[in-house]
Order: sequence, then C-alpha cells, then structure tokens
Amino acid sequence: MPTTQPMLSLLLTDLYQLTMAQAYWKSGRGEKEAVFQMFFRRHPFDGGFTVACGLQTLMDVLTQARFDDSDVDYLATLTGQDGQALFDADFLATLRDFRLTCDIDAIPEGTIVFPFEPLVRVTGPLVQAQLLETIILNIINFQTLIATKAARICIAAQGEPVIEFGLRRAQGPDGGLSASRAAYVGGCVATSNVLAGKVYGIPVRGTHAHSWVMSFDDEREAFRTYAETLPNNCVFLVDTYDTLEGVRRAIEVGHWLREQGHEMVGIRLDSGDLAYLSIEARKLLDAAGFPDAMIVASNDLDETIINSLKQQGACINVWGVGTKLVTGYDQPTLGGVYKLTALRDRGADDWRYCIKLSEQAVKISTPGIHQVRRYSVDGELVADAIYDVRSNLGSGCVVIDPLDPTRRKRIPPEATYEDLLVPVFRQGVRVYEPPPLDASRHRAQSSLARLSPGLKRFVNPHIYPVGLEQSLYDLKMQLVLQARGSNGQTTRP
Amino acid sequence: MPTTQPMLSLLLTDLYQLTMAQAYWKSGRGEKEAVFQMFFRRHPFDGGFTVACGLQTLMDVLTQARFDDSDVDYLATLTGQDGQALFDADFLATLRDFRLTCDIDAIPEGTIVFPFEPLVRVTGPLVQAQLLETIILNIINFQTLIATKAARICIAAQGEPVIEFGLRRAQGPDGGLSASRAAYVGGCVATSNVLAGKVYGIPVRGTHAHSWVMSFDDEREAFRTYAETLPNNCVFLVDTYDTLEGVRRAIEVGHWLREQGHEMVGIRLDSGDLAYLSIEARKLLDAAGFPDAMIVASNDLDETIINSLKQQGACINVWGVGTKLVTGYDQPTLGGVYKLTALRDRGADDWRYCIKLSEQAVKISTPGIHQVRRYSVDGELVADAIYDVRSNLGSGCVVIDPLDPTRRKRIPPEATYEDLLVPVFRQGVRVYEPPPLDASRHRAQSSLARLSPGLKRFVNPHIYPVGLEQSLYDLKMQLVLQARGSNGQTTRP
Repeated sequence: MPTTQPMLSLLLTDLYQLTMAQAYWKSGRGEKEAVFQMFFRRHPFDGGFTVACGLQTLMDVLTQARFDDSDVDYLATLTGQDGQALFDADFLATLRDFRLTCDIDAIPEGTIVFPFEPLVRVTGPLVQAQLLETIILNIINFQTLIATKAARICIAAQGEPVIEFGLRRAQGPDGGLSASRAAYVGGCVATSNVLAGKVYGIPVRGTHAHSWVMSFDDEREAFRTYAETLPNNCVFLVDTYDTLEGVRRAIEVGHWLREQGHEMVGIRLDSGDLAYLSIEARKLLDAAGFPDAMIVASNDLDETIINSLKQQGACINVWGVGTKLVTGYDQPTLGGVYKLTALRDRGADDWRYCIKLSEQAVKISTPGIHQVRRYSVDGELVADAIYDVRSNLGSGCVVIDPLDPTRRKRIPPEATYEDLLVPVFRQGVRVYEPPPLDASRHRAQSSLARLSPGLKRFVNPHIYPVGLEQSLYDLKMQLVLQARGSNGQTTRP
Repeated sequence: MPTTQPMLSLLLTDLYQLTMAQAYWKSGRGEKEAVFQMFFRRHPFDGGFTVACGLQTLMDVLTQARFDDSDVDYLATLTGQDGQALFDADFLATLRDFRLTCDIDAIPEGTIVFPFEPLVRVTGPLVQAQLLETIILNIINFQTLIATKAARICIAAQGEPVIEFGLRRAQGPDGGLSASRAAYVGGCVATSNVLAGKVYGIPVRGTHAHSWVMSFDDEREAFRTYAETLPNNCVFLVDTYDTLEGVRRAIEVGHWLREQGHEMVGIRLDSGDLAYLSIEARKLLDAAGFPDAMIVASNDLDETIINSLKQQGACINVWGVGTKLVTGYDQPTLGGVYKLTALRDRGADDWRYCIKLSEQAVKISTPGIHQVRRYSVDGELVADAIYDVRSNLGSGCVVIDPLDPTRRKRIPPEATYEDLLVPVFRQGVRVYEPPPLDASRHRAQSSLARLSPGLKRFVNPHIYPVGLEQSLYDLKMQLVLQARGSNGQTTRP
C-alpha cells in the first residue's frame, strides 16, 4: 500500500551508509556483530518529557525494505573521485539479496522517554545495522517530535479537544501524513487530513473555508446554503468580513436549522483577538439560546498561545492547531542520533564496548547494550535507570546523571519496575505486533497522567531523574579515560 | 513510480475541502468558474527574496491524482453530528469520476518571487479549484521554503560547494526527499540522499561516520582500511577521538594512498571549534604536501554560522548542511495561502471579484486574476507589477505597495519586461514540460546573480519594489470599502 509506506527502497539512506557497508564487506568486517542505539540528548521544546512515536511506521518499512534491480543499477552508475565505479559488482550483488537479519528492541509508541534512553536498539551484522541508521533516525526523530508537541498542546488545552489542521503547512505530503499520525498518538482527538483518516483510522473533522463565504454575495446566504446541504456538519466560520456580525448571522441560520430538526454544531474563529471575540461570541450564542454551540478557534495556535488565551478567560471549546504542531515550529527536529555502542566477532562471547569522545561531555557516547528500567514506588514514578543488559541488576540501585555525577539517586529495594525496551524483530522476523493507534494514544495519555505536574510545565520544567546505573557509569568513565590516554589528550585545552 | 509521487490520492486533503465540494455540488454552484491564487505574504527567514520551487512535483501529482474505489468507500463511512452519513452517494459517484479540467498558470521553478505574487493560479469549476487547495499549498510551501533556505546558505558559502546532508533529521521520508530536491534547485551541488540521487538525478556525495572509526581498535587502522576498500572516495572524518591527531593520521594514510596511485580527497570536521580546527588542519595538510586535500565541515551549520566562520578565516572548502537546511529550522513553514479572487457563472462574460477582509491589512486579499510583470532597465531589475490579466497594461505603469500606499514606483516606458506566470494546464491537460532540475537550478543561480546585493543580505535586506499596478490597487480599495459598507464596520475599532 504505497500510501502508508511511501519509501520502501533502502536507497532512502545517506550515501555514506552504502560506501561504509561496502568497506565493511570488502574488509571482511561486515559480519561482525554490532550494537547500535538510537537516542536523543535533550527534550524538544525545552520541555520535561518526550513521547516516543513512529515505531510501527519504522517496522512496516523494515519489514518490506529491499534494494530492487533499479536501485542496484543506479548504484552501479556512481563514480568516485577518479571517475571509476564507486561500488563493486560483487558488493552490489549482496544488496540485491539483502534481507534483514538483525535483532531489534524498541520502546513502544506512546511511552514517555527521557534523554539518553535508547528508543531503538539494533543488534546484528555490522553492515546491516549501519545501513539502518538513516531510516531509523528519519522516522523516529520526526514522529517523536510531533507526538511530544501534540502532548504539550493538549496539556495547554486542559482536556479540551485539540484537532490537528496542519496538512497545508506540513513539510511535504508525508510530512503531513506522518504528523497527523504522531499528533494523534500525542493526544489530538482528530485531524483534518482525510488520507490520515483512511490510512490510520484517525477521526477526521472539518468546518468550511473563507472561500465558501466569499463565493456568495453575502454571508447569510453562504451559511444558509451550507446548512441546507450539510445540516449535520454546521460549524460556521464567522470571520470572513466582520466576526461578531458573522456570529449573528450564524445564529440566524442556527434558528432555521433548529426548525428543520438539526442543531448547529458551532462557530469557528480564525483571526483577530481570539480572547475578546470568543467571550463576545459566547455571550451572543448563549443569549440566543445556543449554549451548546461550540466555539472552535484556530490561527497559529500553539501551547503558549493556548495557555495565554486560557488565562484571559477565552471561551473556546475546541482548538484547531496546524502549522505550529505539524512542523514542531520552535524546534523542527528532535536531533536524535544512532551510535555504535558494542561490537564483537561473530559468535564470540565477549563484546568490545565502543565509545565516541567529544570536547562536549553531552556528546560522549555511552558504551554497552542498554535497557531502561523505570522504577515506581506506590505507583509513583521515581527514576529511570539506563543499565547494561549483561549486568546483574539487583533490587534497588544507584543511578548517576551522566552529565553531572553529583546528581545521583538511590532506588529503594522495594521499588517496582518495568523494563521499557521490548523485542520487535528477532533475526529479522517481526516478533511484536504494534498495538492499534488508539492504544498507543491511550498509553501516552495514561503515562502523562502519571507524570508530576512539574515535569509538564513549559517554563523550567522539573528534571526527571534518569541516569546510568552505577556500574555502567563506572564503565563509561573507565573507557573515556582509556580512550583519551591511548589517543592523546585533546590538543586544545 | 511510488517513490516520486508517494501520495497520489486526492484524499491527501482537508476534510472541509470535500464537505465544501459536496455543498457546492448540491447547491448547484460547483460548476461556477472560480479563480484561486496561491501566494505568500512575507519572505521566509526575514529575507529579501524567495525561490519558487515544487511545480514539477505538483504537476506530477495533479496529472495522476484520482479518488479510487477504496477512497470513496472510506468517505462513505464518515458521519456527521447526528450519526448520519456525511456524504451523499450521488456526490461520491462524482468523485469516482473526478478528472481535472482546470486551467493552471504558475511561475516556473527557480524563479525569484516576492510577497503577494501568485505562484500558482487555478481557473476552473469552483468544486475542483477548491479541492486542489491543500495539495498545492503542501507541495509549493515546503519546496519553496527549502529552495530559499538553500539559496541563502549558498550565498553565505560565497560560491564554495554546499552539500545537503539532512535526511536523518528531515520531517519524515518524503520530507527528506522533497527537501533534497528543493535544496538542489536552491543551489546545493549534491545530496547525501541516495534515493534523491536516483529519482531526481541529483549528484550524491558522502564521507564516512564516526561508527566506522569506532568499529576499529584505532583510528589509523580505520582510515587505512577505508582507503584500501574505497581508494577513490577518501574523505576521512577526523574528530572521533581528537581532531588534530585525527588529521595527522589522515595524512599518514594519505601518503600511503598516494603510493598506491590514489589521492586522498580530504578530511571532514564534525564538531568543536570549526574555525580554529580548520585553520590548524589546513596548516598540517599543507605542510605534509596535501594542499589540494579539501576540508569538509558539518555540524549544525546554517547561513549565519557559515558567515561567521568565513569572517573568522576558517579554511573550509566544502560545507555539509543538514538539519537547518532540510527543515527550514528558524522558520519551518512558508505560510503560503490560496485565496478565491474571482468567480462567475459558467460561460458568463463578467467576473465577480472576491475579497476577504481582515482587521490586519496584510491579510486582506486582492481581488482579480493576476499576472506578474517583471521590469528591467538595461538588464537590471527595477520592479514587479502584479496586474489583472484583463487590464490593458501599456508600456510603463505605476505600482503601489498594497501595505503602504505611500510606497509607489513609476516604471519608465522604456523598461523591458517578462510576465512570470506561464500556462501549465489547459482544461486539465498538461501544456508545460518542466525543465530538467539542472535547468531550474541554473535559473535560480542566474536570477540570484541579477539581484542587487542589498536584497541578498541577511540583516535588514533591501525591499524589492513589488506592488499592485495602479488600476488593480484602485479596484481593491473600492471593493474593500464596499465590503466594509455592506457588511458593517468592524465591531471593535
């Protein structure tokens, strides 16, 4: 179904993944067993939480991704610096036969996640695990970003419905489709995007445009004709000419509709001072006998503006959010990365743990094969420990903030826990059936409900305790010092 | 070919386009002839110019777009407020037979455009022209945004090559593919996105990742193995452990490569102080006999950072730009709109010109059927006039800034001109063959070269004179005052 998986070719990758793949293969290293982990370093939007999203999309792509003949033929045309072919025919033949054989573990969609926690962990032949980097980052980065933005907007709306209206301002056709999906997981109740409705089963909603009104000689006739033709879908857009006059005309048509046995759903405001206009519109509707008519608002809304409108006492029942939701706007990318963390010869017992240094502590990678353990006491979340799956984690532990080792948290032995990563592929075979989208949305909602309010505020949110379990922290420090030793100090203090 | 046109279904639209379409159809208004125009109101990035992009993608979608049986079946399941079907079976039958019959005019890709100029103008049955709104905005908004960002980044790079590396941080698979296309039109020389290379013929380039180095016991062995397996593609990433030590190791391997009859292409810096490190790396490379080895830089670059690095004397030859290019970053959407500007009964002579009011002058639409005339004197651009195609524009004219009527420009009669919109569909049939992507890229380059430097600077750019031709301006004013009269003053001063 091309509409759900538009880009099944594994050519949707960076060239260097393929040149590295060839170099791994030619140097006989391609079958080494590698562990790569995808994680982000900071919550988007300066927030206190992130909502994982995109796993099902990723799994659908990985299940079917291939290099077809035309892909391989194209690669054969590429040349290097000297005008000679970049790729060997023998290597290209291996791509033609490419089949996923990796183990993949991942955190289910709708889970609240924190910096440095692996959202996806790939274990398998080095050449394969490397090749998956770009598609994993592309899909998980974007959907996680938008699910998080949606959750923030829904928090600002305080339980009132938020509808995603962003397709026209999204980053291309699939930018819109993926955003609709992620916005729903993050908490939106519906989308205007009809294809997202069809493909993902998301409820679709809509009103009408200014052009509808402009196509008539006057606004009253426009509303009346809409009511005649769609009596069960009447949300009148009242601001084409003069907003409160528009409300009065909507009321007139609302009375007429009622005589016909139908009820006006409400009105929509799309410009001007939404606080003032919604309050005045509410008075007019109530006075005219339409206390149940909803007021829908749109026009460049985001969590900050919704928050401000709420504080001003705006009488808005439904929030239509577009541009600033589907693009992430104030931060249009999550910035997640995918790092090699362990390597061994095929079949060997011992892993070599890998580290990347950086002058910035936040960019030093953490070696190992990680799982995330989320601890609760009396049903309340207390901390997350990132730990190595080969360590023997007993009851209770100490977690250490990798960026600030003075921040430590001791988990009491009575804490209960769950491990967040679940197996999704084993030797290339799907072993996890993603839940229906509604279930992922529900998971996000119930997880957010368990977070302390301090984590959900927009300004200087509380920092949830997440850290490396002590033995992993110690191992990382040891490897950092060792790498700096064997590779020299940084040349510039 | 699903990879080029991932979303051929016309369901990739907002629900209200379909409900309005049904309402137009049921009320017998669907066959009225309408004119809609797509334009933007402000240059993105607070800039002085915008590069039009996306027309070929849009044309490919419109040429093949249909409602298939499963689309129609899905629409039949949607319900309104009262639980009854939203769409009539008769209306759905018309969708099944949908074929484009509109006339479409548009500005070719790679053209420099300015606020309020119609990039796309659709003339045809109201019901159809309305339906096209969402897909036109989705495609043209995004690609135009990214082509413009790319042009800005290339201006900062002062003619040095810029490569687009953004797929992993793009907004979904097609967000990456469309961005690669638009970045190339805007001036990038290549992309890392292999699928974009295959589909659009864009040159692809790449180096290697940190993981390549990390998968070896030491960096020297990593570079050497890469050189052995890909001797004609050696750009060594030197910052996995210690950047300048990495440069020294690259030089060692460079010598070895030379002995084998190959030449190291260069090195890449991806972290740290790029100004300092590039200067020191250049010294090391030059001293070692590698004056032609390129220094590629990446790491969250954009036009501002490139500008700053240039001022600091950074020795960087090739700029790899990702996240901040493919998402637009500081402004992730163009914000273009699609407005109804004229309407008439089918076959009638006279158009009714349509206007949308707003309390914000910038949001008042301009009525009419517009063409853009770009005037030059002695080869230098002097102004653009937006004029009504039915007006009799003689040689010379007066153009008036719609937002500031005190800004006027008189075009001298000796000015030469070209009209920017060209016919692309006539009665639903393609009548324009988009040029190869290279030609659109060349159009952008040569157009940018003709712009005055003041328009291309990043801070407080000069404002190019674009306005409504006088008779169109007068008509707009008349209709605004008339609309305010018949619909009442604004209720709130």
